[in-house]
Amino acid sequence: MTDAASPSLRLQVADALAAARRAADAARPAALAHFRAEGLSAENKDAAGGFDPVTAADRGVEAAIREVLAQERPADGVLGEEQAARPSTSGLTWVVDPIDGTRAFLIGAPTWGVLIGLNDGARPVMGLMDQPHVGERFWGDGDSAWWAKDGEAPRRLRARQGVPLAEARLCSTFPEVGTTDERLAFERVRDRARLTRYGLDCTGYALVAAGGVDLVVEAGLHAYDVQALIPIVEGAGGVITTWDGGDPQDGGRVLAAGSRALHAEAMALLAL
Amino acid sequence: MTDAASPSLRLQVADALAAARRAADAARPAALAHFRAEGLSAENKDAAGGFDPVTAADRGVEAAIREVLAQERPADGVLGEEQAARPSTSGLTWVVDPIDGTRAFLIGAPTWGVLIGLNDGARPVMGLMDQPHVGERFWGDGDSAWWAKDGEAPRRLRARQGVPLAEARLCSTFPEVGTTDERLAFERVRDRARLTRYGLDCTGYALVAAGGVDLVVEAGLHAYDVQALIPIVEGAGGVITTWDGGDPQDGGRVLAAGSRALHAEAMALLAL
Repeated sequence: MTDAASPSLRLQVADALAAARRAADAARPAALAHFRAEGLSAENKDAAGGFDPVTAADRGVEAAIREVLAQERPADGVLGEEQAARPSTSGLTWVVDPIDGTRAFLIGAPTWGVLIGLNDGARPVMGLMDQPHVGERFWGDGDSAWWAKDGEAPRRLRARQGVPLAEARLCSTFPEVGTTDERLAFERVRDRARLTRYGLDCTGYALVAAGGVDLVVEAGLHAYDVQALIPIVEGAGGVITTWDGGDPQDGGRVLAAGSRALHAEAMALLAL
Repeated sequence: MTDAASPSLRLQVADALAAARRAADAARPAALAHFRAEGLSAENKDAAGGFDPVTAADRGVEAAIREVLAQERPADGVLGEEQAARPSTSGLTWVVDPIDGTRAFLIGAPTWGVLIGLNDGARPVMGLMDQPHVGERFWGDGDSAWWAKDGEAPRRLRARQGVPLAEARLCSTFPEVGTTDERLAFERVRDRARLTRYGLDCTGYALVAAGGVDLVVEAGLHAYDVQALIPIVEGAGGVITTWDGGDPQDGGRVLAAGSRALHAEAMALLAL
């Protein structure tokens, strides 16, 4: 949502956020029934021989979200990681990653999240990231971004400004993903950053919005990995694009930064 | 504590655990006052030019823990990361890492922990790891290990058994720590494991006890990084030693595994 968003679009986004909250509420028990449960299994759906764990939790969470959206938003489309896409008759499409960070989920680390975004046909206009085990939630609409923990008042999020790369805190899923060229590009940024943390998935982007992380550099993303996070990062004053400065909504190589200056500094190093 | 522990030692450990809980309760507000706070600063106390962030939170948490221990356990010694050691007249010494995982704390990820262990002069006999933001706690005495989230009943922890290295989930702080030889040794294990997650600090060991993680391989640890975790890992049926099978209580190169067989498999690959 840009600064020029009309009042009616604002109302539409507020309605959508309320639906996203109820969908995330429904997702929580579906996720927590499996988190740190004994015998949580992971099938391997990556035919190329990699390890792409899919758990009963992913499927249960997506089903719970789809059920809420089918009731409350029957005209909207749904694009999810696990099930076939539901076409939109309203022009709006929900973009859902039931459990972003399945590896963290599998081992029991509370850095995965439930991602629920809304795309108006041109771009994501609202996004929510929920962490059921912690009981916290990040959301945004491109104009503002917010965080709340269960039972606490929402707090406005602002990305950290004025941080040069030499002082920046970087998150990434490398070295596990990407081609050799992509990894080398990532390492050019990493070698100049102050601090690097690995494998935080959606939590890295949420923390850019919260001002704790300054940069996220990733490759190989899908649309559902990133769409919900775009309005959160931008709503907090951050910048999120592909590595070459393009629209990040289809995923691929994604760069998020707390400030425009830091984004430019990192992008120059990421040129392939 | 071994299976042959006397009833009086068991009572002593139970008393100590109660004190550890009160110390961890006191640590929570001291830590959370700074977690994700604006302007959290990190001084650089690593003279060699690396990045070793020390925050006001570390100091505040250690002070809060020491205050409880000074009141409740005046004869016990205290070895903490931030302040000078207090000598023991009881033969017992508390080993405290106020915030294990300062980097995670700095960026806002909920994978750091407050570590409070008790050493009887020979070895750690009780340990507790608290995660204030999540509101969860892991503890153990070598015979058993437990987990509880605020408001929920404690659950007994058991490390995952019967997992060969090819199916194992590995946690580590590499590639950030260690010498080149140590990194190459770690990579021999990593290249044979199913899944690797980086930078979880104490949460990795807690999750070995919880059965989500099968292996932790780290180097460059201090006594206060590991002592509280030993009775938790062992209490859940796991194995924790140095890379060459020795006593891990002084830190250095540490290997934790869910089972004896997996520990042996990893140790063979870690030989320097």
